[in-house]
Amino acid sequence: MQKLKKFNIGLIQIQLGKSPSVNLNKAVSWIEKAAKKGANVICLPELFRSQYFCQKEDINNFDLAETIPGPSTNAISNICKKLGVVVAASLFEKRASGLYHNTTVVINNKGLIEGMYRKMHIPDDPAYYEKFYFTPGDLGYKSFNTKFGKISTLICWDQWYPEAARLAALQGPEVIFYPTAIGWHPHEKKKHGKAQIESWQTVQRGHAVANGIYVAAVNRIGLEKQDSKSAGIEFWGSSFVADPQGVIIAQASSDKEEILIAEIDQERIEYIRRNWPFLRDRRIDSYDGITKRFLQ
Amino acid sequence: MQKLKKFNIGLIQIQLGKSPSVNLNKAVSWIEKAAKKGANVICLPELFRSQYFCQKEDINNFDLAETIPGPSTNAISNICKKLGVVVAASLFEKRASGLYHNTTVVINNKGLIEGMYRKMHIPDDPAYYEKFYFTPGDLGYKSFNTKFGKISTLICWDQWYPEAARLAALQGPEVIFYPTAIGWHPHEKKKHGKAQIESWQTVQRGHAVANGIYVAAVNRIGLEKQDSKSAGIEFWGSSFVADPQGVIIAQASSDKEEILIAEIDQERIEYIRRNWPFLRDRRIDSYDGITKRFLQ
Repeated sequence: MQKLKKFNIGLIQIQLGKSPSVNLNKAVSWIEKAAKKGANVICLPELFRSQYFCQKEDINNFDLAETIPGPSTNAISNICKKLGVVVAASLFEKRASGLYHNTTVVINNKGLIEGMYRKMHIPDDPAYYEKFYFTPGDLGYKSFNTKFGKISTLICWDQWYPEAARLAALQGPEVIFYPTAIGWHPHEKKKHGKAQIESWQTVQRGHAVANGIYVAAVNRIGLEKQDSKSAGIEFWGSSFVADPQGVIIAQASSDKEEILIAEIDQERIEYIRRNWPFLRDRRIDSYDGITKRFLQ
Repeated sequence: MQKLKKFNIGLIQIQLGKSPSVNLNKAVSWIEKAAKKGANVICLPELFRSQYFCQKEDINNFDLAETIPGPSTNAISNICKKLGVVVAASLFEKRASGLYHNTTVVINNKGLIEGMYRKMHIPDDPAYYEKFYFTPGDLGYKSFNTKFGKISTLICWDQWYPEAARLAALQGPEVIFYPTAIGWHPHEKKKHGKAQIESWQTVQRGHAVANGIYVAAVNRIGLEKQDSKSAGIEFWGSSFVADPQGVIIAQASSDKEEILIAEIDQERIEYIRRNWPFLRDRRIDSYDGITKRFLQ
């Protein structure tokens, strides 16, 4: 058999503070730590430059956006080049006045922008008012050839959509990263918290199984309040990596800053897909209805 | 709020023997037991009239097939009419000489055939030689309006395909049934058994979550050997029902005959989908690639 590649991914689970510049410096220093632990491809949590401002609709928050390339990609490019690592960085992208996206940039081991993915599925729920801030992505689903392996990035709310995982997986990556910002409404945690986090993990493990691919979810931690009156969101961390059979091979806590390292092994993908060859039997002649809103 | 429906489903997890007529009588008597326990809509395991003959390729096994309507649907129609229940029955359908399907028939509470679904995704793996026996379905994905609620049926290998679950769910059923025949190769059980059953359950719970729908998997139990030389398959039972958040609300053993009863509650579906409105945000403008084999 052809020799197949292995590489290490690093998931950075951190708490983010009020200051974007402090957050950026923190991200850079955690990228260094992850590289030191052996990570080749590193992913930051969703919108790591700020606290999760989508808890309220406030036009002043557009000040947090930046162009791509811009200050964040410049800083990350430098560290990527220095360390020879690849980083997936989720940013609040200013594309034009009045036109913003939730975007993940992939920066390669030479410090160059390999490409970007703009979040396709945009939520809008109490305290997650993303439709106010982000225009839905117009780049489609993406994969990126890196020195270490082929990766895809989707973002947070995308993780509930099997279509997104499939369309990423069909491009042949070894791993799908999901930079994420998800947590509990503090008043709901006791009653619904366990079921919420389990269904969040389950649906993503399901994508790993259905596509025979590694899935890596990278969340932030900590309680964030936009003002003293709000209960805020308690971000539930719990970053994890599932292997191509859906087995959890790395699991973070719900409340600690940490780096998860996991090995991505093409040979494991080959083995799993030989034994459960789901891609072989897709009935592509019968899937037209997927592009319809509803079928009744 | 509009008053929403509730009804009970019954999953029949049994062992099947060598004699098709004995199996049919057994199925009828277990339908009676399930109805007595309060089931309104009852589902039998995949191909319940026989042992799992697909363990080998033998043209004599085509003798096991029958027309629809035929002897099995007649027997089940009688019991449905008598008890006022709906039954989903998985049969080896003879459509014409040389043309056979793996088909689930839905028989309504008046004993009439409400419709049928022909398995769309056909496996072919060691000891699961289904491509030898079954032509892939040509009816597409189906749902059935019954007196109690709207149901869909998919079959076994379909459970690994998010597309199938989505295309069923978009028709508006409350529950998707998966009559199933899956088990361990005895020599693999120790090493791989746990991961296999977990990924089988996980991917289906994922369908429940992604679609905000109940999912009911109905498997057989018991070790079946096609001949004395083969190790056979140890069917792993473990039938279950997941609610629209992916929570397991009924779970059978891996080795006992039993009936699982679970309540299907439209109000629960409404509640879950209001809180996690995934159907609202599907990017149907971006899903064309789903009908392609691969995208690289």
